[in-house]
Amino acid sequence: MEIAVLLFEKFNVLDVAGPYEILTGVPASHITFVAAAPGLVHNDTGSLAIMAQLSLAEMTHPDVVVVPGGAGEVGVRNDSATLEWIRQVHRTTQWTTSVCTGSLILAASGILNGVRATTHWLAIEELRKLGAVAVKERVVEDGKVLTAAGVTAGIDMGLVLAARLAGDAVAQSIQLGMEYEPAPPFDAGSPTTAPREIVELKRQRSRFAPLLD
Amino acid sequence: MEIAVLLFEKFNVLDVAGPYEILTGVPASHITFVAAAPGLVHNDTGSLAIMAQLSLAEMTHPDVVVVPGGAGEVGVRNDSATLEWIRQVHRTTQWTTSVCTGSLILAASGILNGVRATTHWLAIEELRKLGAVAVKERVVEDGKVLTAAGVTAGIDMGLVLAARLAGDAVAQSIQLGMEYEPAPPFDAGSPTTAPREIVELKRQRSRFAPLLD
Repeated sequence: MEIAVLLFEKFNVLDVAGPYEILTGVPASHITFVAAAPGLVHNDTGSLAIMAQLSLAEMTHPDVVVVPGGAGEVGVRNDSATLEWIRQVHRTTQWTTSVCTGSLILAASGILNGVRATTHWLAIEELRKLGAVAVKERVVEDGKVLTAAGVTAGIDMGLVLAARLAGDAVAQSIQLGMEYEPAPPFDAGSPTTAPREIVELKRQRSRFAPLLD
Repeated sequence: MEIAVLLFEKFNVLDVAGPYEILTGVPASHITFVAAAPGLVHNDTGSLAIMAQLSLAEMTHPDVVVVPGGAGEVGVRNDSATLEWIRQVHRTTQWTTSVCTGSLILAASGILNGVRATTHWLAIEELRKLGAVAVKERVVEDGKVLTAAGVTAGIDMGLVLAARLAGDAVAQSIQLGMEYEPAPPFDAGSPTTAPREIVELKRQRSRFAPLLD
């Protein structure tokens, strides 16, 4: 089982680490970080860099693709080589997946046209504009496309993916191993539960702000 | 605010990514990955490598220290240079923190003697053996020491830490930004909720198994 995790400059590391950590627990999985070129790729805050082992050209038939989000997503949406790679590998993947604004990259490649999908709560309108049937859910499965809402939803998506790949018992064992019995100290994880003024501030400062009015 | 995240060979990347991603959202935070030597450090499954920017010797007075767990924790517990670094920086930190079996490293350095702390559910007895007042809680705060249970508990610990460093509103804003409204597809995140046979298998295969009988 060949799993390719896409990296690009200014990716979000938690988008990556959630599904990655889960998929390492799937039997016979082999995970490779791929990028436009092999080498260090920096996250969206610049203080973290992960090694990409292979170029996109060297990863032609992954069984599973994971596309994270992060501020650099905008640039990737304009990178024709990466979009073409997504279109090509999607033809033969078992699962094509994304976390957070990673679905905007999938959508920009055209593979989400008419497909139910989700993204970060601030980017739902943008996802719709790019041709997907954008819905506000935590994890969305449509055929072989699995998309997750913002950042931490990648953990929930990863567990769904592990269950599809290897069965519920394997996914449950992974969940137990990572002690995923969440207990957030605040109830502020969604725009419907967070304090109103904090939601408004996030909206105003968002790079998707023009779309939200 | 100087934040040092300790890396060592065979660290767990989700232990790192949870608190890291949260702390990047704390105003005026400056995060540095430190290790025995600068350079690439590999995670516990070997397919992921993060860049350490500074050696331990180059990071003498961090305000916050984050120590992850992972299979390599055993080696670090026998690495006198790293343990001495922990003892030294702990004298002047505002917060000394850990995720998962990272608390075993803190305990091995001696700084958890008589301190309330937690760790991965499989390692509680080991933590007790190392001198801590080991308790089974999600996040434990004792003075300036913050410890988290297994892997994903680092996200909850990170939010508590963000609230202590910058106030509840900042922590809530970070939680909203990462859409942390978890929805695990299974209820298998703790030994009290997971299917009994899965819990038993985990116990048997654990490197802490001899302690658990």
